[in-house]
Amino acid sequence: MSVLRMGYMHVRVTDMAEAKQHYGNTVGLYQTLEQDGKVYFKGWDEWDHHSVVLEEGGVGMVKCGFKVLDPGELDGIEARATRFGAVVERMSAGENAEVSDGIRVILPSTHVIEFYHSMTPVGLEVGTHNPDAFPRHLVGIGAPRLDHALIVAEDVGEIERFFKEVVDFYPTERLATSLDDDAHLIATWMTIGNTNHDIAILEGPNGKIHHFAFEMRGWDDILHAGDIFAMDDTPVDIGPTRHGITRGTTIYFFDPSGNRNETFAGGYQCFRDRPVVTWTPEAVGKGIFYHARELNERFMTVMT
Amino acid sequence: MSVLRMGYMHVRVTDMAEAKQHYGNTVGLYQTLEQDGKVYFKGWDEWDHHSVVLEEGGVGMVKCGFKVLDPGELDGIEARATRFGAVVERMSAGENAEVSDGIRVILPSTHVIEFYHSMTPVGLEVGTHNPDAFPRHLVGIGAPRLDHALIVAEDVGEIERFFKEVVDFYPTERLATSLDDDAHLIATWMTIGNTNHDIAILEGPNGKIHHFAFEMRGWDDILHAGDIFAMDDTPVDIGPTRHGITRGTTIYFFDPSGNRNETFAGGYQCFRDRPVVTWTPEAVGKGIFYHARELNERFMTVMT
Amino acid sequence: MSVLRMGYMHVRVTDMAEAKQHYGNTVGLYQTLEQDGKVYFKGWDEWDHHSVVLEEGGVGMVKCGFKVLDPGELDGIEARATRFGAVVERMSAGENAEVSDGIRVILPSTHVIEFYHSMTPVGLEVGTHNPDAFPRHLVGIGAPRLDHALIVAEDVGEIERFFKEVVDFYPTERLATSLDDDAHLIATWMTIGNTNHDIAILEGPNGKIHHFAFEMRGWDDILHAGDIFAMDDTPVDIGPTRHGITRGTTIYFFDPSGNRNETFAGGYQCFRDRPVVTWTPEAVGKGIFYHARELNERFMTVMT
Amino acid sequence: MSVLRMGYMHVRVTDMAEAKQHYGNTVGLYQTLEQDGKVYFKGWDEWDHHSVVLEEGGVGMVKCGFKVLDPGELDGIEARATRFGAVVERMSAGENAEVSDGIRVILPSTHVIEFYHSMTPVGLEVGTHNPDAFPRHLVGIGAPRLDHALIVAEDVGEIERFFKEVVDFYPTERLATSLDDDAHLIATWMTIGNTNHDIAILEGPNGKIHHFAFEMRGWDDILHAGDIFAMDDTPVDIGPTRHGITRGTTIYFFDPSGNRNETFAGGYQCFRDRPVVTWTPEAVGKGIFYHARELNERFMTVMT
Repeated sequence: MSVLRMGYMHVRVTDMAEAKQHYGNTVGLYQTLEQDGKVYFKGWDEWDHHSVVLEEGGVGMVKCGFKVLDPGELDGIEARATRFGAVVERMSAGENAEVSDGIRVILPSTHVIEFYHSMTPVGLEVGTHNPDAFPRHLVGIGAPRLDHALIVAEDVGEIERFFKEVVDFYPTERLATSLDDDAHLIATWMTIGNTNHDIAILEGPNGKIHHFAFEMRGWDDILHAGDIFAMDDTPVDIGPTRHGITRGTTIYFFDPSGNRNETFAGGYQCFRDRPVVTWTPEAVGKGIFYHARELNERFMTVMT
Repeated sequence: MSVLRMGYMHVRVTDMAEAKQHYGNTVGLYQTLEQDGKVYFKGWDEWDHHSVVLEEGGVGMVKCGFKVLDPGELDGIEARATRFGAVVERMSAGENAEVSDGIRVILPSTHVIEFYHSMTPVGLEVGTHNPDAFPRHLVGIGAPRLDHALIVAEDVGEIERFFKEVVDFYPTERLATSLDDDAHLIATWMTIGNTNHDIAILEGPNGKIHHFAFEMRGWDDILHAGDIFAMDDTPVDIGPTRHGITRGTTIYFFDPSGNRNETFAGGYQCFRDRPVVTWTPEAVGKGIFYHARELNERFMTVMT
Repeated sequence: MSVLRMGYMHVRVTDMAEAKQHYGNTVGLYQTLEQDGKVYFKGWDEWDHHSVVLEEGGVGMVKCGFKVLDPGELDGIEARATRFGAVVERMSAGENAEVSDGIRVILPSTHVIEFYHSMTPVGLEVGTHNPDAFPRHLVGIGAPRLDHALIVAEDVGEIERFFKEVVDFYPTERLATSLDDDAHLIATWMTIGNTNHDIAILEGPNGKIHHFAFEMRGWDDILHAGDIFAMDDTPVDIGPTRHGITRGTTIYFFDPSGNRNETFAGGYQCFRDRPVVTWTPEAVGKGIFYHARELNERFMTVMT
Repeated sequence: MSVLRMGYMHVRVTDMAEAKQHYGNTVGLYQTLEQDGKVYFKGWDEWDHHSVVLEEGGVGMVKCGFKVLDPGELDGIEARATRFGAVVERMSAGENAEVSDGIRVILPSTHVIEFYHSMTPVGLEVGTHNPDAFPRHLVGIGAPRLDHALIVAEDVGEIERFFKEVVDFYPTERLATSLDDDAHLIATWMTIGNTNHDIAILEGPNGKIHHFAFEMRGWDDILHAGDIFAMDDTPVDIGPTRHGITRGTTIYFFDPSGNRNETFAGGYQCFRDRPVVTWTPEAVGKGIFYHARELNERFMTVMT
């Protein structure tokens, strides 16, 4: 398995002071660096330098990074991405603070994704010797780690194919116009390991992001997150609820700039031989929001 | 304490077959009687004959009953209700199946409420000798017991006064136009004991009911209830979420006729000396739905 | 209903500095006073001045207090306690810091219990105007409130009778040698309202206390409490587990002096007409610890 | 990644009728075959034919199987296992009912493990088209899937090395006599993917198994499992509690023959670059049982 996970999400925010308050005090991430107009955060259960990067000026995703296990894998990714037809370039150590050299790819959907093999390690907040189960004093919702992102693309099938062919991801669940082989693919959830998704792709305008998500420890932490959002006047899009797709429990909420975040907990263990789940349009409401079984307008239209 | 609790809710349904499916298989109540066009249900953690009565023909509340500890208390209720100015009449044993004689009161809001001192006991599903914590095989959401109702009245203050003066209830939380002494009362949550509410009253058209609620065991059972609603195509109004008012966690949903039900869990222990909480209009969204902080149209307008 | 609840528990501790650390930083109570060698605490969801009083010098219960709704009820309690044969005396305002005048009773079991009608109010931590569901920053396990105590007496039946006859408590569950009417009573759980117990009495040496308990919000908070105990090296007696008796979920733990505390969550709503549950010796293990179904040595022998 | 997961655990039981009752009605697995004195079960969230095999005659592990993604990987495993010095043989399709051909390895610890590339698929209980989040009617604790096993070996380091070198597992947590490089390894938790462990190895008599575990959905399902064990008189070893190691929540319990089972929920996402956690003996109690912080006698001595 060459790719380990989505290691960082780099987004634009309209107001850095508000954004720092949100990601620091509400989401409960640890600020690890502020430099050159960018602010870097990590979750308490992450050991690399950062998983979220904020940059002032608008909204939306600047780029995201996927970590690979060792440098030797970058050549293969470069070759396969080039063969796929994506725009590929080498990046140097230091282009991203604390991040190694790597490969930068511009997807046909115009999203920029970077593959890197190392980031300055800063360690788990609980340490690695007889550690406690979590830090004694968590802030806000205390998000442990970045989990996944849902990006938006005009041609979902093409981006699914990129992640399959270039980095060996596999789909766990798919939303299509029907069960037929030639059905049109509306969305896909893909993983490289046992999680439900490292990346998901939804049909829509190229280059947009629907949300990026933090993994929480369970349904009760989802409730606690919702309570903290109420205390902090954090706008909630929807939730707490369950997704039919992935079975995960969730709240969608917005940062002060309007980027959608998610708290996600649960979901099942995925494996490459697990049958892929297919959702068809008559059940899409249930697939997205299992309890309400209908999509709200915001969910369908707000992408940054 | 003269009144023990709201002992039964008697509602109309448009289709009895569908209603039996809903209250029996989805809510998971136990049918205890079908007679004279009425169907009677109890929860697994109730010991009296029934707590829900269904009657075909329309929607909405026919009446509800409050149980008192002993027959001797009925005289006092009759006297105080008469003094209050309500319409009061004696009812005989058997007017309600399996229910003792008692007092019937028509509130100024036109709601009919009955006070009775006994109902045929049928016992807890788990028994009383070395009982298990719950029945081994619960159906649907497995609602343990009826908890409370929210009724609608043009003059909330008047109905609050009725429950205070006639049956010694006390308000635990109130929604008013301001904190001033002469503020207009929009809603009130009242209890006779330690629960958050046996009855709540919301401003609106006389004689209507907003919902009646079943007590669940916790936040996880609220999730499970939502999941069962998805499987059974039970329309969900809102939730899972938390109420700011009472702190309880909740899902509002509808029976097939359109009567609103609630699953309610949590909330705090109330006492007569606990300071009353007051909500004012700028926070009403948060008070009702703590996470979303806004009321949906349905919640405000659908009353049966 | 004359008695509202057990309002305070006053215990001895061997080391005040350690005890303050325990009740303040681990249990998460708020210190409200330190005076004359005594330290006073309250939970975040309590409004009166204190619910726990610590006094240096040994271990065990000094006394506990029950709050009544108004002063007029004290005469009746005095009369009934005297008739019962207990030692009764009037106490003055100020004998207990911030507590009104009242009645002091020495039970036949030598336990001292006080009845009082008011305590200096200090308010809920979340306030009473558009309050949040809990304080933004809780400490340790963040115990909301004192819930109940289990005291030990040679003659359980006699003390049960005291609470019935003098202050109108009723038993919700009982442990007896058999189901026969003349069975020997080993333990009883009694309440004045809708909780499972305000006080419980277990057979054993007079004057001892088995534990006193804080009410938690649910099973997940029980887990969190256990995690905090691990971080703070708080000795755990048993749990997390469920009680068969009351169905509550629980952890028993010890303060640094050896007084047993409990975190208790759940349990069902009690009512005076609910059938009393009876446990018999063959199921006592299951009654106390539902999952393990056996009592540990500590549980049976450590009383302070 | 060549190995997908531990696909089946094959154990001996002393009484098949009791064992079927346990794994079918209490654990809630689905029986898929009874043939030649063996009984086969799967969990509701598994799609291959079986994950548990029972065989009458004694107790303990007969063997366990690991599934690989495709047949081509078996050659490499065979070569590396042979080079490692293990006893290796080819097995034919049908030697295990419904299981493909593969490789059988006898570890130096005498445990038999099999690698296979396919098993007759029987499908998820919820299907793959617009599926519900779980089956409407689960039995007993409703275990979704087999998760991992803890086997016992005289030389833990050797077996850890086997899983590293032969099938590319990596350790996530380790228990050693100290933090020194030459410390003696007492136990190790290893995974091939993102779970906390597919296999763990504990120092002790060769060929024994400490337990095998089913993955549950969360802490509340752990409570529910404990409650079902109480109802079914299933012996509980310890729990509900949390492991310090893996952070998972757990109950250990026994099948009627004395084989130890576990319900396991939670734990964190593992990655090959995550720092390995090391536990040292002074914290072993906390590592195994986070709340009690001491091991019980049974846990240390009962291995089958």
